Amino acid sequence: MLRLTTTRISPLLLLPSSRRSMSSLPYAFTPEQRAENVAQLKKWKEVAGRDAIMREFMFMDFSEAWSFMSRTSLLAEKIDHHPEWFNVYNTVSVTLTTHDTGGVSAKDIEMAKAMDGFSDGLMRESGEEVPVIVNIDSVKPS
Amino acid sequence: MLRLTTTRISPLLLLPSSRRSMSSLPYAFTPEQRAENVAQLKKWKEVAGRDAIMREFMFMDFSEAWSFMSRTSLLAEKIDHHPEWFNVYNTVSVTLTTHDTGGVSAKDIEMAKAMDGFSDGLMRESGEEVPVIVNIDSVKPS
Amino acid sequence: MLRLTTTRISPLLLLPSSRRSMSSLPYAFTPEQRAENVAQLKKWKEVAGRDAIMREFMFMDFSEAWSFMSRTSLLAEKIDHHPEWFNVYNTVSVTLTTHDTGGVSAKDIEMAKAMDGFSDGLMRESGEEVPVIVNIDSVKPS
Amino acid sequence: MLRLTTTRISPLLLLPSSRRSMSSLPYAFTPEQRAENVAQLKKWKEVAGRDAIMREFMFMDFSEAWSFMSRTSLLAEKIDHHPEWFNVYNTVSVTLTTHDTGGVSAKDIEMAKAMDGFSDGLMRESGEEVPVIVNIDSVKPS
Repeated sequence: MLRLTTTRISPLLLLPSSRRSMSSLPYAFTPEQRAENVAQLKKWKEVAGRDAIMREFMFMDFSEAWSFMSRTSLLAEKIDHHPEWFNVYNTVSVTLTTHDTGGVSAKDIEMAKAMDGFSDGLMRESGEEVPVIVNIDSVKPS
Repeated sequence: MLRLTTTRISPLLLLPSSRRSMSSLPYAFTPEQRAENVAQLKKWKEVAGRDAIMREFMFMDFSEAWSFMSRTSLLAEKIDHHPEWFNVYNTVSVTLTTHDTGGVSAKDIEMAKAMDGFSDGLMRESGEEVPVIVNIDSVKPS
Repeated sequence: MLRLTTTRISPLLLLPSSRRSMSSLPYAFTPEQRAENVAQLKKWKEVAGRDAIMREFMFMDFSEAWSFMSRTSLLAEKIDHHPEWFNVYNTVSVTLTTHDTGGVSAKDIEMAKAMDGFSDGLMRESGEEVPVIVNIDSVKPS
Repeated sequence: MLRLTTTRISPLLLLPSSRRSMSSLPYAFTPEQRAENVAQLKKWKEVAGRDAIMREFMFMDFSEAWSFMSRTSLLAEKIDHHPEWFNVYNTVSVTLTTHDTGGVSAKDIEMAKAMDGFSDGLMRESGEEVPVIVNIDSVKPS
Protein backbone atom coordinates (compact mmCIF):
# COMPACT_ATOMS: atom_id res chain seq x y z
CA MET A 1 0.00 0.00 0.00
CA LEU A 2 1.90 2.47 -1.12
CA ARG A 3 1.18 5.84 -1.95
CA LEU A 4 3.79 8.48 -1.93
CA THR A 5 2.56 11.66 -0.38
CA THR A 6 4.30 13.67 -3.06
CA THR A 7 2.75 14.18 -6.48
CA ARG A 8 2.89 11.55 -9.17
CA ILE A 9 5.23 13.50 -11.36
CA SER A 10 8.05 13.59 -8.90
CA PRO A 11 8.15 10.32 -7.07
CA LEU A 12 11.87 10.00 -6.93
CA LEU A 13 14.44 12.45 -5.76
CA LEU A 14 18.08 12.89 -6.58
CA LEU A 15 19.27 10.89 -3.68
CA PRO A 16 22.73 10.07 -2.40
CA SER A 17 24.16 6.86 -3.78
CA SER A 18 23.39 5.04 -0.55
CA ARG A 19 19.74 5.28 -1.50
CA ARG A 20 20.28 3.93 -4.96
CA SER A 21 18.08 0.85 -5.00
CA MET A 22 16.04 0.47 -8.16
CA SER A 23 13.10 2.10 -6.51
CA SER A 24 15.08 5.18 -5.67
CA LEU A 25 17.33 5.41 -8.69
CA PRO A 26 18.94 8.83 -9.04
CA TYR A 27 17.90 9.04 -12.62
CA ALA A 28 19.22 12.40 -13.76
CA PHE A 29 22.19 11.94 -16.08
CA THR A 30 25.38 13.86 -16.46
CA PRO A 31 26.04 14.61 -20.15
CA GLU A 32 28.55 11.76 -20.22
CA GLN A 33 26.10 9.31 -18.67
CA ARG A 34 23.42 10.37 -21.09
CA ALA A 35 25.65 9.87 -24.12
CA GLU A 36 26.88 6.50 -22.94
CA ASN A 37 23.43 5.18 -22.14
CA VAL A 38 21.73 6.43 -25.28
CA ALA A 39 24.54 4.96 -27.38
CA GLN A 40 23.52 1.52 -26.13
CA LEU A 41 20.08 1.91 -27.64
CA LYS A 42 20.86 0.96 -31.22
CA LYS A 43 17.29 1.24 -32.44
CA TRP A 44 16.43 4.56 -30.83
CA LYS A 45 17.22 7.98 -32.17
CA GLU A 46 17.34 11.51 -30.84
CA VAL A 47 14.27 13.67 -31.28
CA ALA A 48 15.02 16.91 -33.11
CA GLY A 49 14.46 19.94 -30.93
CA ARG A 50 13.79 18.04 -27.71
CA ASP A 51 15.87 16.23 -25.14
CA ALA A 52 14.10 12.97 -25.91
CA ILE A 53 14.55 9.67 -27.73
CA MET A 54 12.16 7.85 -30.00
CA ARG A 55 11.68 4.55 -31.76
CA GLU A 56 9.10 3.26 -34.16
CA PHE A 57 8.09 -0.33 -33.58
CA MET A 58 6.45 -2.19 -36.43
CA PHE A 59 4.59 -5.40 -35.71
CA MET A 60 2.72 -7.87 -37.86
CA ASP A 61 -0.71 -6.61 -36.96
CA PHE A 62 -2.72 -4.84 -34.29
CA SER A 63 -2.88 -7.96 -32.15
CA GLU A 64 0.88 -8.05 -31.80
CA ALA A 65 1.16 -4.31 -31.32
CA TRP A 66 -1.49 -4.34 -28.63
CA SER A 67 0.16 -7.22 -26.82
CA PHE A 68 3.32 -5.11 -26.72
CA MET A 69 1.46 -2.04 -25.52
CA SER A 70 -0.42 -3.94 -22.83
CA ARG A 71 2.79 -5.32 -21.41
CA THR A 72 4.43 -1.93 -21.53
CA SER A 73 1.45 -0.32 -19.80
CA LEU A 74 2.06 -2.46 -16.73
CA LEU A 75 5.68 -1.37 -16.49
CA ALA A 76 4.80 2.26 -17.12
CA GLU A 77 2.33 2.26 -14.27
CA LYS A 78 4.64 0.27 -12.02
CA ILE A 79 7.59 2.63 -12.32
CA ASP A 80 5.34 5.67 -12.75
CA HIS A 81 6.94 6.58 -16.05
CA HIS A 82 4.57 6.82 -18.98
CA PRO A 83 5.62 6.97 -22.61
CA GLU A 84 4.31 9.34 -25.23
CA TRP A 85 3.14 6.85 -27.79
CA PHE A 86 1.21 6.85 -31.03
CA ASN A 87 -0.38 3.74 -32.45
CA VAL A 88 -2.14 2.91 -35.64
CA TYR A 89 -2.75 -0.74 -36.47
CA ASN A 90 0.67 -2.45 -36.41
CA THR A 91 2.91 0.52 -35.67
CA VAL A 92 3.78 2.05 -32.31
CA SER A 93 5.85 5.23 -32.26
CA VAL A 94 7.31 5.87 -28.83
CA THR A 95 8.93 9.04 -27.46
CA LEU A 96 10.63 8.92 -24.09
CA THR A 97 11.68 11.81 -21.90
CA THR A 98 11.48 12.61 -18.21
CA HIS A 99 9.52 15.66 -17.24
CA ASP A 100 11.15 16.03 -13.82
CA THR A 101 14.67 16.14 -15.15
CA GLY A 102 13.85 17.98 -18.37
CA GLY A 103 15.34 15.34 -20.60
CA VAL A 104 16.42 11.76 -21.06
CA SER A 105 17.04 10.07 -17.72
CA ALA A 106 17.81 6.63 -16.36
CA LYS A 107 14.09 5.93 -16.27
CA ASP A 108 13.89 6.43 -20.03
CA ILE A 109 16.79 4.08 -20.61
CA GLU A 110 15.14 1.48 -18.43
CA MET A 111 11.86 1.86 -20.29
CA ALA A 112 13.53 1.80 -23.71
CA LYS A 113 15.44 -1.40 -22.91
CA ALA A 114 12.37 -3.07 -21.54
CA MET A 115 10.35 -2.13 -24.64
CA ASP A 116 13.14 -3.45 -26.86
CA GLY A 117 12.99 -6.73 -24.94
CA PHE A 118 9.20 -6.97 -25.15
CA SER A 119 9.17 -6.32 -28.88
CA ASP A 120 12.11 -8.59 -29.67
CA GLY A 121 10.19 -11.53 -28.33
CA LEU A 122 7.09 -10.74 -30.32
CA MET A 123 9.01 -10.01 -33.50
CA ARG A 124 11.06 -13.16 -33.24
CA GLU A 125 7.82 -15.02 -32.87
CA SER A 126 6.50 -13.38 -36.00
CA GLY A 127 9.30 -14.74 -38.11
CA GLU A 128 8.18 -18.27 -37.59
CA GLU A 129 5.45 -20.18 -39.24
CA VAL A 130 2.69 -20.93 -36.83
CA PRO A 131 0.21 -22.75 -39.01
CA VAL A 132 -3.27 -22.95 -37.65
CA ILE A 133 -5.12 -25.70 -39.39
CA VAL A 134 -8.31 -27.35 -38.32
CA ASN A 135 -8.97 -30.64 -40.00
CA ILE A 136 -12.48 -31.11 -41.19
CA ASP A 137 -12.39 -33.61 -43.98
CA SER A 138 -16.07 -33.72 -44.41
CA VAL A 139 -18.56 -31.18 -43.36
CA LYS A 140 -21.29 -32.45 -41.16
CA PRO A 141 -24.68 -31.39 -42.41
CA SER A 142 -26.11 -28.87 -40.01
CA MET B 1 -2.73 3.55 -42.28
CA LEU B 2 -0.54 0.61 -43.04
CA ARG B 3 -2.26 -2.69 -43.33
CA LEU B 4 -0.43 -5.91 -43.91
CA THR B 5 -2.31 -8.23 -46.13
CA THR B 6 -1.03 -11.36 -44.47
CA THR B 7 -1.88 -12.67 -41.04
CA ARG B 8 0.51 -14.88 -39.18
CA ILE B 9 -2.19 -16.84 -37.47
CA SER B 10 -4.62 -17.91 -40.10
CA PRO B 11 -7.90 -18.90 -38.60
CA LEU B 12 -9.33 -20.38 -41.73
CA LEU B 13 -10.63 -23.86 -41.51
CA LEU B 14 -9.98 -26.46 -44.12
CA LEU B 15 -13.40 -26.20 -45.56
CA PRO B 16 -14.81 -25.88 -49.03
CA SER B 17 -14.19 -22.28 -49.98
CA SER B 18 -17.87 -21.57 -50.23
CA ARG B 19 -18.20 -22.26 -46.50
CA ARG B 20 -15.33 -20.13 -45.32
CA SER B 21 -17.19 -17.03 -44.28
CA MET B 22 -17.19 -16.82 -40.50
CA SER B 23 -20.89 -16.23 -40.19
CA SER B 24 -21.87 -19.47 -41.82
CA LEU B 25 -19.10 -21.57 -40.33
CA PRO B 26 -20.33 -25.07 -39.52
CA TYR B 27 -18.09 -25.45 -36.53
CA ALA B 28 -19.70 -28.44 -34.87
CA PHE B 29 -17.52 -31.55 -35.08
CA THR B 30 -18.40 -35.09 -35.86
CA PRO B 31 -16.83 -37.43 -33.26
CA GLU B 32 -14.10 -38.28 -35.75
CA GLN B 33 -13.32 -34.65 -36.45
CA ARG B 34 -13.23 -33.89 -32.77
CA ALA B 35 -10.80 -36.70 -32.04
CA GLU B 36 -8.52 -35.80 -34.91
CA ASN B 37 -8.41 -32.12 -34.07
CA VAL B 38 -7.93 -32.52 -30.34
CA ALA B 39 -5.14 -35.00 -30.99
CA GLN B 40 -3.19 -32.20 -32.66
CA LEU B 41 -3.18 -30.17 -29.46
CA LYS B 42 -0.28 -31.80 -27.69
CA LYS B 43 -0.38 -29.53 -24.67
CA TRP B 44 -4.10 -29.61 -24.06
CA LYS B 45 -6.00 -32.27 -22.18
CA GLU B 46 -9.59 -33.38 -21.82
CA VAL B 47 -11.58 -32.01 -18.92
CA ALA B 48 -13.06 -34.74 -16.76
CA GLY B 49 -16.84 -34.74 -16.81
CA ARG B 50 -17.20 -32.09 -19.50
CA ASP B 51 -16.87 -31.96 -23.25
CA ALA B 52 -14.06 -29.42 -22.99
CA ILE B 53 -10.29 -29.10 -23.22
CA MET B 54 -7.91 -27.27 -20.93
CA ARG B 55 -4.32 -26.14 -20.70
CA GLU B 56 -2.33 -24.45 -18.00
CA PHE B 57 0.07 -21.82 -19.26
CA MET B 58 2.94 -20.80 -17.01
CA PHE B 59 4.82 -17.61 -17.76
CA MET B 60 7.73 -15.84 -16.16
CA ASP B 61 5.65 -13.29 -14.32
CA PHE B 62 2.39 -11.38 -14.42
CA SER B 63 3.67 -9.05 -17.11
CA GLU B 64 4.15 -11.91 -19.52
CA ALA B 65 0.90 -13.60 -18.56
CA TRP B 66 -1.02 -10.37 -19.02
CA SER B 67 0.56 -9.73 -22.40
CA PHE B 68 -0.70 -13.17 -23.43
CA MET B 69 -4.16 -12.54 -22.03
CA SER B 70 -4.43 -9.12 -23.67
CA ARG B 71 -3.62 -10.55 -27.05
CA THR B 72 -6.02 -13.42 -26.56
CA SER B 73 -8.77 -11.03 -25.50
CA LEU B 74 -8.69 -9.38 -28.93
CA LEU B 75 -9.11 -12.69 -30.71
CA ALA B 76 -11.83 -13.81 -28.32
CA GLU B 77 -13.85 -10.68 -28.98
CA LYS B 78 -13.15 -10.79 -32.70
CA ILE B 79 -14.41 -14.32 -33.22
CA ASP B 80 -16.97 -14.00 -30.42
CA HIS B 81 -15.59 -16.99 -28.59
CA HIS B 82 -14.50 -16.34 -25.05
CA PRO B 83 -12.42 -18.69 -22.95
CA GLU B 84 -13.05 -19.70 -19.38
CA TRP B 85 -9.78 -18.68 -17.82
CA PHE B 86 -8.27 -18.39 -14.39
CA ASN B 87 -5.21 -16.30 -13.68
CA VAL B 88 -3.03 -15.75 -10.69
CA TYR B 89 0.30 -14.03 -11.22
CA ASN B 90 2.19 -16.01 -13.86
CA THR B 91 -0.27 -18.83 -14.49
CA VAL B 92 -3.25 -18.88 -16.81
CA SER B 93 -5.52 -21.92 -16.78
CA VAL B 94 -7.74 -22.04 -19.82
CA THR B 95 -10.81 -24.17 -20.48
CA LEU B 96 -12.36 -24.16 -23.93
CA THR B 97 -15.76 -25.39 -24.98
CA THR B 98 -18.51 -24.10 -27.22
CA HIS B 99 -21.85 -23.39 -25.62
CA ASP B 100 -23.78 -23.44 -28.86
CA THR B 101 -22.65 -26.90 -29.85
CA GLY B 102 -22.46 -28.35 -26.35
CA GLY B 103 -18.81 -29.30 -26.59
CA VAL B 104 -15.47 -28.84 -28.28
CA SER B 105 -15.89 -27.31 -31.72
CA ALA B 106 -13.74 -25.91 -34.50
CA LYS B 107 -13.79 -22.56 -32.73
CA ASP B 108 -12.12 -24.10 -29.69
CA ILE B 109 -9.44 -25.68 -31.83
CA GLU B 110 -8.80 -22.35 -33.50
CA MET B 111 -8.59 -20.59 -30.16
CA ALA B 112 -6.35 -23.26 -28.64
CA LYS B 113 -3.91 -23.11 -31.55
CA ALA B 114 -3.81 -19.35 -31.47
CA MET B 115 -3.14 -19.35 -27.71
CA ASP B 116 -0.39 -21.90 -28.21
CA GLY B 117 1.17 -19.60 -30.78
CA PHE B 118 0.87 -16.52 -28.59
CA SER B 119 2.45 -18.24 -25.62
CA ASP B 120 5.21 -19.94 -27.61
CA GLY B 121 6.56 -16.56 -28.63
CA LEU B 122 6.49 -15.18 -25.13
CA MET B 123 8.00 -18.29 -23.58
CA ARG B 124 10.81 -18.42 -26.10
CA GLU B 125 11.52 -14.84 -25.25
CA SER B 126 11.65 -15.70 -21.57
CA GLY B 127 14.44 -18.16 -22.09
CA GLU B 128 16.77 -15.43 -23.18
CA GLU B 129 18.61 -12.92 -21.14
CA VAL B 130 17.16 -9.51 -21.63
CA PRO B 131 19.49 -7.46 -19.51
CA VAL B 132 18.27 -4.07 -18.48
CA ILE B 133 21.28 -2.17 -17.32
CA VAL B 134 21.60 1.52 -16.88
CA ASN B 135 25.16 2.75 -16.74
CA ILE B 136 25.81 5.28 -14.06
CA ASP B 137 29.45 5.06 -13.28
CA SER B 138 29.59 8.09 -11.14
CA VAL B 139 26.86 10.07 -9.58
CA LYS B 140 26.92 13.72 -10.35
CA PRO B 141 26.81 15.81 -7.19
CA SER B 142 23.50 17.56 -7.05
CA MET C 1 -21.25 -19.67 -19.94
CA LEU C 2 -23.59 -16.82 -19.29
CA ARG C 3 -24.36 -14.65 -22.22
CA LEU C 4 -26.48 -11.58 -22.02
CA THR C 5 -28.56 -11.12 -25.08
CA THR C 6 -28.45 -7.36 -25.03
CA THR C 7 -25.56 -5.14 -25.90
CA ARG C 8 -25.32 -1.61 -24.63
CA ILE C 9 -23.55 -0.28 -27.66
CA SER C 10 -25.40 -1.45 -30.70
CA PRO C 11 -23.33 -0.86 -33.81
CA LEU C 12 -26.11 -1.48 -36.27
CA LEU C 13 -26.60 1.13 -38.88
CA LEU C 14 -29.98 2.38 -39.90
CA LEU C 15 -29.94 0.52 -43.14
CA PRO C 16 -32.38 -1.71 -44.93
CA SER C 17 -32.28 -4.99 -43.07
CA SER C 18 -30.93 -6.75 -46.10
CA ARG C 19 -27.78 -4.65 -45.88
CA ARG C 20 -27.11 -5.10 -42.20
CA SER C 21 -24.54 -7.86 -42.29
CA MET C 22 -21.19 -6.39 -41.38
CA SER C 23 -19.33 -7.93 -44.30
CA SER C 24 -21.45 -6.28 -46.93
CA LEU C 25 -21.84 -2.98 -45.15
CA PRO C 26 -21.82 -0.10 -47.60
CA TYR C 27 -20.11 2.26 -45.22
CA ALA C 28 -19.02 4.97 -47.61
CA PHE C 29 -20.97 8.18 -47.11
CA THR C 30 -22.49 10.55 -49.56
CA PRO C 31 -21.52 14.14 -48.71
CA GLU C 32 -24.95 14.67 -47.15
CA GLN C 33 -24.65 11.54 -45.02
CA ARG C 34 -21.19 12.54 -43.92
CA ALA C 35 -22.32 16.01 -42.86
CA GLU C 36 -25.34 14.72 -41.01
CA ASN C 37 -23.45 12.05 -39.15
CA VAL C 38 -20.47 14.15 -38.21
CA ALA C 39 -22.82 16.87 -36.94
CA GLN C 40 -24.06 14.41 -34.33
CA LEU C 41 -20.60 14.11 -32.84
CA LYS C 42 -20.58 17.19 -30.65
CA LYS C 43 -17.16 16.55 -29.16
CA TRP C 44 -15.34 15.69 -32.37
CA LYS C 45 -13.90 18.13 -34.85
CA GLU C 46 -12.69 18.05 -38.41
CA VAL C 47 -9.00 17.51 -39.02
CA ALA C 48 -7.43 20.27 -41.10
CA GLY C 49 -6.19 19.03 -44.44
CA ARG C 50 -7.57 15.51 -44.11
CA ASP C 51 -10.94 13.87 -44.46
CA ALA C 52 -10.86 12.77 -40.84
CA ILE C 53 -12.28 13.61 -37.43
CA MET C 54 -10.51 13.87 -34.10
CA ARG C 55 -11.20 14.16 -30.39
CA GLU C 56 -8.97 14.55 -27.39
CA PHE C 57 -10.06 12.59 -24.36
CA MET C 58 -8.75 13.64 -20.97
CA PHE C 59 -9.02 11.25 -18.06
CA MET C 60 -8.01 11.46 -14.43
CA ASP C 61 -4.89 9.38 -14.78
CA PHE C 62 -3.23 6.68 -16.85
CA SER C 63 -5.30 3.96 -15.21
CA GLU C 64 -8.51 5.47 -16.48
CA ALA C 65 -7.07 6.25 -19.90
CA TRP C 66 -5.79 2.71 -20.27
CA SER C 67 -9.11 1.22 -19.24
CA PHE C 68 -10.68 3.25 -22.05
CA MET C 69 -8.06 2.21 -24.55
CA SER C 70 -8.30 -1.45 -23.63
CA ARG C 71 -12.01 -1.47 -24.16
CA THR C 72 -11.67 0.37 -27.43
CA SER C 73 -9.01 -2.06 -28.62
CA LEU C 74 -11.51 -4.91 -28.46
CA LEU C 75 -14.01 -3.04 -30.62
CA ALA C 76 -11.32 -1.96 -33.05
CA GLU C 77 -10.20 -5.52 -33.59
CA LYS C 78 -13.75 -6.82 -33.72
CA ILE C 79 -14.90 -4.50 -36.48
CA ASP C 80 -11.43 -4.37 -38.06
CA HIS C 81 -11.27 -0.61 -37.80
CA HIS C 82 -8.31 0.74 -35.88
CA PRO C 83 -7.94 4.31 -34.67
CA GLU C 84 -4.91 6.51 -35.01
CA TRP C 85 -4.35 7.38 -31.38
CA PHE C 86 -1.77 9.13 -29.29
CA ASN C 87 -1.54 8.66 -25.54
CA VAL C 88 0.50 10.21 -22.81
CA TYR C 89 -0.52 9.61 -19.23
CA ASN C 90 -4.17 10.74 -18.92
CA THR C 91 -4.77 12.04 -22.45
CA VAL C 92 -5.80 10.10 -25.54
CA SER C 93 -5.96 11.94 -28.86
CA VAL C 94 -7.91 9.99 -31.44
CA THR C 95 -8.10 10.50 -35.20
CA LEU C 96 -10.59 8.50 -37.22
CA THR C 97 -10.72 7.96 -40.94
CA THR C 98 -11.32 5.01 -43.22
CA HIS C 99 -8.53 4.03 -45.54
CA ASP C 100 -10.73 2.05 -47.88
CA THR C 101 -13.09 4.88 -48.58
CA GLY C 102 -10.53 7.68 -48.36
CA GLY C 103 -12.34 9.56 -45.65
CA VAL C 104 -14.85 9.52 -42.82
CA SER C 105 -17.23 6.60 -43.18
CA ALA C 106 -19.97 4.91 -41.21
CA LYS C 107 -17.31 2.85 -39.45
CA ASP C 108 -15.72 6.02 -38.08
CA ILE C 109 -19.06 7.27 -36.81
CA GLU C 110 -19.66 3.95 -35.12
CA MET C 111 -16.24 4.00 -33.52
CA ALA C 112 -16.55 7.63 -32.43
CA LYS C 113 -19.91 7.03 -30.78
CA ALA C 114 -18.66 3.94 -29.03
CA MET C 115 -15.59 5.79 -27.74
CA ASP C 116 -17.82 8.61 -26.51
CA GLY C 117 -19.90 6.05 -24.64
CA PHE C 118 -16.87 4.32 -23.13
CA SER C 119 -15.35 7.58 -21.93
CA ASP C 120 -18.62 9.04 -20.65
CA GLY C 121 -18.92 6.18 -18.21
CA LEU C 122 -15.39 6.54 -16.94
CA MET C 123 -15.61 10.30 -16.70
CA ARG C 124 -18.93 10.20 -14.89
CA GLU C 125 -17.31 7.79 -12.49
CA SER C 126 -14.47 10.22 -11.97
CA GLY C 127 -16.78 12.92 -10.83
CA GLU C 128 -17.82 11.02 -7.77
CA GLU C 129 -16.06 10.57 -4.53
CA VAL C 130 -14.93 7.01 -4.14
CA PRO C 131 -13.15 7.10 -0.83
CA VAL C 132 -10.86 4.21 -0.18
CA ILE C 133 -9.96 4.04 3.45
CA VAL C 134 -8.47 1.15 5.28
CA ASN C 135 -9.03 1.29 9.00
CA ILE C 136 -6.03 0.42 11.08
CA ASP C 137 -6.58 2.02 14.43
CA SER C 138 -3.50 0.62 15.96
CA VAL C 139 -0.47 -0.73 14.28
CA LYS C 140 0.45 -4.26 15.17
CA PRO C 141 4.11 -4.53 16.12
CA SER C 142 5.90 -6.39 13.39
CA MET D 1 3.02 16.01 -20.49
CA LEU D 2 -0.06 16.80 -18.50
CA ARG D 3 -0.16 15.45 -15.01
CA LEU D 4 -3.07 15.83 -12.68
CA THR D 5 -2.07 16.25 -9.10
CA THR D 6 -5.13 14.60 -7.66
CA THR D 7 -6.00 10.95 -7.61
CA ARG D 8 -9.58 9.82 -7.65
CA ILE D 9 -9.03 6.68 -5.68
CA SER D 10 -6.99 7.54 -2.65
CA PRO D 11 -5.79 4.35 -1.04
CA LEU D 12 -3.97 5.85 1.90
CA LEU D 13 -4.02 3.82 5.04
CA LEU D 14 -4.84 5.37 8.33
CA LEU D 15 -1.38 4.92 9.67
CA PRO D 16 1.07 7.14 11.46
CA SER D 17 2.78 9.11 8.75
CA SER D 18 6.12 7.65 9.71
CA ARG D 19 4.90 4.20 8.66
CA ARG D 20 3.61 5.16 5.27
CA SER D 21 6.60 4.22 3.20
CA MET D 22 5.95 1.21 1.00
CA SER D 23 8.81 -0.92 2.18
CA SER D 24 8.03 -0.83 5.86
CA LEU D 25 4.29 -1.07 5.61
CA PRO D 26 2.93 -3.41 8.27
CA TYR D 27 0.02 -4.64 6.27
CA ALA D 28 -0.77 -7.71 8.35
CA PHE D 29 -3.97 -7.29 10.34
CA THR D 30 -4.76 -8.06 13.90
CA PRO D 31 -7.98 -10.08 14.14
CA GLU D 32 -9.83 -6.93 15.13
CA GLN D 33 -8.46 -4.96 12.20
CA ARG D 34 -9.32 -7.78 9.83
CA ALA D 35 -12.90 -7.98 11.06
CA GLU D 36 -13.40 -4.23 10.90
CA ASN D 37 -11.96 -3.86 7.43
CA VAL D 38 -13.72 -6.84 5.88
CA ALA D 39 -17.00 -5.63 7.36
CA GLN D 40 -16.70 -2.52 5.20
CA LEU D 41 -16.72 -4.61 2.04
CA LYS D 42 -20.44 -5.12 1.66
CA LYS D 43 -20.21 -7.04 -1.60
CA TRP D 44 -17.41 -9.38 -0.63
CA LYS D 45 -17.74 -12.61 1.32
CA GLU D 46 -15.46 -14.93 3.19
CA VAL D 47 -14.07 -17.92 1.34
CA ALA D 48 -14.88 -21.19 3.07
CA GLY D 49 -11.79 -22.98 4.31
CA ARG D 50 -9.34 -20.19 3.47
CA ASP D 51 -8.38 -16.87 4.98
CA ALA D 52 -9.52 -15.04 1.87
CA ILE D 53 -12.36 -12.93 0.52
CA MET D 54 -14.15 -13.16 -2.81
CA ARG D 55 -16.60 -11.30 -4.99
CA GLU D 56 -18.24 -12.11 -8.27
CA PHE D 57 -18.53 -9.17 -10.62
CA MET D 58 -21.06 -9.36 -13.41
CA PHE D 59 -20.81 -6.96 -16.31
CA MET D 60 -22.85 -6.43 -19.45
CA ASP D 61 -20.47 -8.19 -21.75
CA PHE D 62 -16.85 -9.15 -22.25
CA SER D 63 -15.92 -5.64 -23.34
CA GLU D 64 -16.94 -4.20 -20.02
CA ALA D 65 -15.42 -7.04 -18.03
CA TRP D 66 -12.14 -6.70 -19.87
CA SER D 67 -12.06 -2.95 -19.35
CA PHE D 68 -12.38 -3.66 -15.62
CA MET D 69 -9.69 -6.32 -15.69
CA SER D 70 -7.29 -4.15 -17.67
CA ARG D 71 -7.58 -1.34 -15.19
CA THR D 72 -7.17 -3.72 -12.28
CA SER D 73 -4.10 -5.27 -13.87
CA LEU D 74 -2.28 -1.93 -13.69
CA LEU D 75 -2.99 -1.58 -9.99
CA ALA D 76 -2.06 -5.20 -9.31
CA GLU D 77 1.31 -4.76 -10.97
CA LYS D 78 1.87 -1.39 -9.36
CA ILE D 79 1.34 -2.56 -5.80
CA ASP D 80 2.70 -6.03 -6.58
CA HIS D 81 -0.46 -7.70 -5.37
CA HIS D 82 -2.15 -9.92 -7.90
CA PRO D 83 -5.65 -11.30 -7.57
CA GLU D 84 -6.75 -14.84 -8.19
CA TRP D 85 -9.41 -14.25 -10.79
CA PHE D 86 -11.58 -16.28 -13.09
CA ASN D 87 -13.28 -14.80 -16.11
CA VAL D 88 -15.74 -16.08 -18.62
CA TYR D 89 -17.44 -13.57 -20.88
CA ASN D 90 -19.12 -11.00 -18.63
CA THR D 91 -18.29 -12.46 -15.21
CA VAL D 92 -15.15 -11.99 -13.16
CA SER D 93 -14.79 -13.97 -9.93
CA VAL D 94 -12.08 -12.55 -7.72
CA THR D 95 -10.41 -14.09 -4.68
CA LEU D 96 -8.06 -11.98 -2.60
CA THR D 97 -5.55 -13.10 -0.02
CA THR D 98 -1.97 -12.20 0.82
CA HIS D 99 0.56 -14.95 0.55
CA ASP D 100 3.14 -13.23 2.73
CA THR D 101 0.84 -12.84 5.67
CA GLY D 102 -1.11 -16.03 5.17
CA GLY D 103 -4.45 -14.30 4.95
CA VAL D 104 -6.42 -11.15 4.29
CA SER D 105 -4.25 -8.08 4.73
CA ALA D 106 -4.45 -4.34 4.17
CA LYS D 107 -3.34 -4.95 0.59
CA ASP D 108 -6.41 -7.06 -0.05
CA ILE D 109 -8.68 -4.41 1.39
CA GLU D 110 -7.06 -1.81 -0.83
CA MET D 111 -7.44 -4.01 -3.88
CA ALA D 112 -11.05 -4.91 -3.06
CA LYS D 113 -12.04 -1.27 -2.62
CA ALA D 114 -10.32 -0.23 -5.81
CA MET D 115 -12.05 -3.04 -7.75
CA ASP D 116 -15.38 -1.99 -6.26
CA GLY D 117 -14.71 1.56 -7.47
CA PHE D 118 -13.65 0.45 -10.94
CA SER D 119 -16.72 -1.74 -11.40
CA ASP D 120 -19.18 0.75 -9.92
CA GLY D 121 -18.33 3.20 -12.66
CA LEU D 122 -18.71 0.66 -15.41
CA MET D 123 -21.92 -0.75 -14.02
CA ARG D 124 -23.46 2.67 -13.55
CA GLU D 125 -22.58 3.34 -17.14
CA SER D 126 -24.28 0.14 -18.20
CA GLY D 127 -27.58 1.20 -16.78
CA GLU D 128 -27.94 4.00 -19.25
CA GLU D 129 -29.01 3.91 -22.78
CA VAL D 130 -26.21 4.87 -25.07
CA PRO D 131 -27.79 4.55 -28.47
CA VAL D 132 -25.40 4.32 -31.35
CA ILE D 133 -27.19 5.31 -34.48
CA VAL D 134 -25.68 6.24 -37.77
CA ASN D 135 -28.01 8.09 -40.05
CA ILE D 136 -28.00 6.91 -43.59
CA ASP D 137 -31.25 7.91 -45.10
CA SER D 138 -30.46 6.63 -48.47
CA VAL D 139 -27.90 4.11 -49.40
CA LYS D 140 -25.41 5.23 -51.96
CA PRO D 141 -25.07 2.70 -54.75
CA SER D 142 -21.71 1.05 -54.43
